[in-house]
Amino acid sequence: MLIPKGFKDFEPKAQIIRNKIFSRVKDIFESFGYEPLETPIVEYWNTLKGKYGEEAESKLIWRFKLPYSETEYALRYDLTVPLARFVASKKPKLPFKRYQIGAVFRYEEPQKGRYRQFYQADFDIIGSKYPEADAEILNVAEKVFSSFNLDFEIVVNHRSIIEGILESLNLKEKFLEICRAIDKLDKIGIEGIKKELKKLEIEEEKVNKIIEIISSSETIKNEKFENGLKNLNEILEFVESKNIRIDFSLVRGLDYYTGMVFEVKIKNLKIGSVGAGGRYDDLIGIFSKQNIPAVGGSIGIDRLVDAIISLNLIKERESVIDIAVIYTNFEVYKEAWKIANKLRNVCNVYIDISRKSFREQINWVVSKNIRYLIIVGKEDLKNYEVTFQDREKREIKKVKLNEIENFIKNEIENRGN
Amino acid sequence: MLIPKGFKDFEPKAQIIRNKIFSRVKDIFESFGYEPLETPIVEYWNTLKGKYGEEAESKLIWRFKLPYSETEYALRYDLTVPLARFVASKKPKLPFKRYQIGAVFRYEEPQKGRYRQFYQADFDIIGSKYPEADAEILNVAEKVFSSFNLDFEIVVNHRSIIEGILESLNLKEKFLEICRAIDKLDKIGIEGIKKELKKLEIEEEKVNKIIEIISSSETIKNEKFENGLKNLNEILEFVESKNIRIDFSLVRGLDYYTGMVFEVKIKNLKIGSVGAGGRYDDLIGIFSKQNIPAVGGSIGIDRLVDAIISLNLIKERESVIDIAVIYTNFEVYKEAWKIANKLRNVCNVYIDISRKSFREQINWVVSKNIRYLIIVGKEDLKNYEVTFQDREKREIKKVKLNEIENFIKNEIENRGN
Repeated sequence: MLIPKGFKDFEPKAQIIRNKIFSRVKDIFESFGYEPLETPIVEYWNTLKGKYGEEAESKLIWRFKLPYSETEYALRYDLTVPLARFVASKKPKLPFKRYQIGAVFRYEEPQKGRYRQFYQADFDIIGSKYPEADAEILNVAEKVFSSFNLDFEIVVNHRSIIEGILESLNLKEKFLEICRAIDKLDKIGIEGIKKELKKLEIEEEKVNKIIEIISSSETIKNEKFENGLKNLNEILEFVESKNIRIDFSLVRGLDYYTGMVFEVKIKNLKIGSVGAGGRYDDLIGIFSKQNIPAVGGSIGIDRLVDAIISLNLIKERESVIDIAVIYTNFEVYKEAWKIANKLRNVCNVYIDISRKSFREQINWVVSKNIRYLIIVGKEDLKNYEVTFQDREKREIKKVKLNEIENFIKNEIENRGN
Repeated sequence: MLIPKGFKDFEPKAQIIRNKIFSRVKDIFESFGYEPLETPIVEYWNTLKGKYGEEAESKLIWRFKLPYSETEYALRYDLTVPLARFVASKKPKLPFKRYQIGAVFRYEEPQKGRYRQFYQADFDIIGSKYPEADAEILNVAEKVFSSFNLDFEIVVNHRSIIEGILESLNLKEKFLEICRAIDKLDKIGIEGIKKELKKLEIEEEKVNKIIEIISSSETIKNEKFENGLKNLNEILEFVESKNIRIDFSLVRGLDYYTGMVFEVKIKNLKIGSVGAGGRYDDLIGIFSKQNIPAVGGSIGIDRLVDAIISLNLIKERESVIDIAVIYTNFEVYKEAWKIANKLRNVCNVYIDISRKSFREQINWVVSKNIRYLIIVGKEDLKNYEVTFQDREKREIKKVKLNEIENFIKNEIENRGN
């Protein structure tokens, strides 16, 4: 019996690192005053419909009916549309800054580094139209990625800049289609984009012009374009990062963006973007009569984890277990059990629960690479003591039973990792 | 646009408490040496089929096909069957102790305290047939519930005891059906069970006998029964809890249990069980040629949270924000922004990002009940200082800019909650 294609089990060794990363990302979000929100995995299909573009709707969204009901459900495709649904219906006090870390689902063809369930860590500001809000989002991204010592860049652009470019070429009515084509730049390259644009029945001359402008950093004379650039500069004034690069070819594939857009890329690693986001001032208005400005970002946790692991940036033990309590024979098992329970107040303790022999217990500890042992034996107990072993320091000593809790607490606190 | 029926958004105030509870439960699991594992939300329907009994299969499991594929998928119904699937295919080193905290899905009729998505926190020992393993599971449960100062009891029984009772009445072949009927005791009462049992075409005399035995604590002469009771006593020898009660009427509804079963109930609260589990020695064998003994427990996080909140057992702030940095006018905004960023190294800081006036900022802080303020004004800045306010202590003082980080760190550490 198998795990579904495109899905993944995270075994303890990987999950320990993931938990550490979740926890650090959460701390950074909270340090900027973002509050936790949790929306469900399942949404009505109606809520997701019309938000992500044609490709997502026709083949990527996990949508379905149950045998017991006519209701059309969907698994969430991102955390942004559910947030907009939440804000429109619950009307939290604005500005509302929230984060959410959770799984999202896309029915993509599985390939290396791409799964049908993956985690996003989203942070959004609802209710501010000002450049400081966009800037704060970029600052959070900067803080998250620099906290892991990654060598990254934050590529930014503005939807008005792209609109301006297309307006100057009289191509405004094909805005979304052209955005989706340009969004594939990393995957299909300049020549690929040229083909895609020709498919949209755009004259070769204009195709070349689009490519020329988005590949350069030259400004053009067009009000939309200039407004976009001005807004971008107002935003960047508040951004404290040396990793920002403006790139007119960045568009982001999702339909709902209206202003600044960004992507975070790890240098020297070919894993696509590890973070992205932008301003989406019209999305909440789809759900509510009131238009509410919004801007946010999303960190691709799985790619971040892959990057951190492949660059060896986190040292983490392979097991949560700090110490194993070993019994020399079953006669002293209950005593050992009591000692294990006492030590659980200060650290993570394993004691065998499958009647292994002394030798087997030691072998298990070695195979799990557990550093500290407490050996409980009949003779030691007569003297109210046990034998402590630090496998890393190759140190062995006797410890009195009434001192053991403090002794171990001290060892754990000073082990240095 | 609405949230799907039977689903729930957890707003920040609730999610802050949930995160605290998740974190404490995780710490306790790890203190017993359980390692984190994460299996996906989606499984093949085939993996779940035949594991939970007829009612679950015919109307409770979220099973579906996508428009793009003939594959039958299901959302996980619990965390135990996916664990068995994992163990059978990945064959981790045994004994394997893991925990997992995550959402599960059941298509139940929504009612107070019952949702279609809810969280379970599972902890299991795979690969030990010994009573110490069962005992450790009960000890973990004891530790979790007592850590929240709940007044609870752990009700235990043994599938062999029930088998023995039915064998003595020549009803063994109806074992699972009868278990499912008795499982409804809390919901439908003795008279309800009598009706259910009669529906199974059991003679009135035998129905009365079943009720008599499961309602008493008297033993009967039957090998299965006696073996079950013996095993239960061996288990309880290792359990350190004053909250254990043996009850022959506890059966648990799921088909896969084979030995000890338990449920945790909060006294004086009518919310059903908040934890449950037992031994399931045959489940992994369904997925693998090898039979592997297993025992585990599951905590119903949502009910636990409800209990903790309704009994007022956790005091938690309603916001993650420790401090708000206020600017008196936009001229000093950039300076205020820098101070906010600096303070983020020591606590969670909010600064307005929507150009509120001074008055509006203060109103917002009051409405969010934020305790500490830093007020950044032009005059203060000339003296290289800001104004600090502790709204709880009604204390106001000037703090030098170069001392602010240490000053706030101190305040936060000594605020006492």
